[in-house]
Amino acid sequence: MAVEIVYRSSRDPEQLFMDKAQADRHDKMLELAENLGEVLQRAVPQLGEQLAEEISIYMARNREVFAKAFKSNPEALAELDASGAA
Amino acid sequence: MAVEIVYRSSRDPEQLFMDKAQADRHDKMLELAENLGEVLQRAVPQLGEQLAEEISIYMARNREVFAKAFKSNPEALAELDASGAA
Repeated sequence: MAVEIVYRSSRDPEQLFMDKAQADRHDKMLELAENLGEVLQRAVPQLGEQLAEEISIYMARNREVFAKAFKSNPEALAELDASGAA
Repeated sequence: MAVEIVYRSSRDPEQLFMDKAQADRHDKMLELAENLGEVLQRAVPQLGEQLAEEISIYMARNREVFAKAFKSNPEALAELDASGAA
């Protein structure tokens, strides 16, 4: 038995990580998703909280692809087809 | 009376522009929105076509802000508050 360090994002306390960098990435993903969720719900109120959250987490998990798409290259979104990453 | 040139995106034939650059921007916005709509509907099927389209057009109209948010700066989305751009 030993005491060990685990890491978590305060935005999602149930999810523990052994690796601080992973916890950081998770926290950053959730931060982006929260911001997206608020903005999208305000823009399209019929969306509702749950759908806004699902879409936002999906996009935040795939942020690099969406960054490319919004910057200049909508075709970058095709990368999401094959991987089925969600 | 005179014949004049007007421009339009084939994605939205009803919207005519006197200025080619404006028509180009409109076409690019719609291209991005179409791609986003497909990807989001596939990722979250409960979203439905109409909501997917509304969200996608909103994001495509504000693409610079979303590009910043996805690249590295979620706080960039705060820019959307004041303007109410939709």
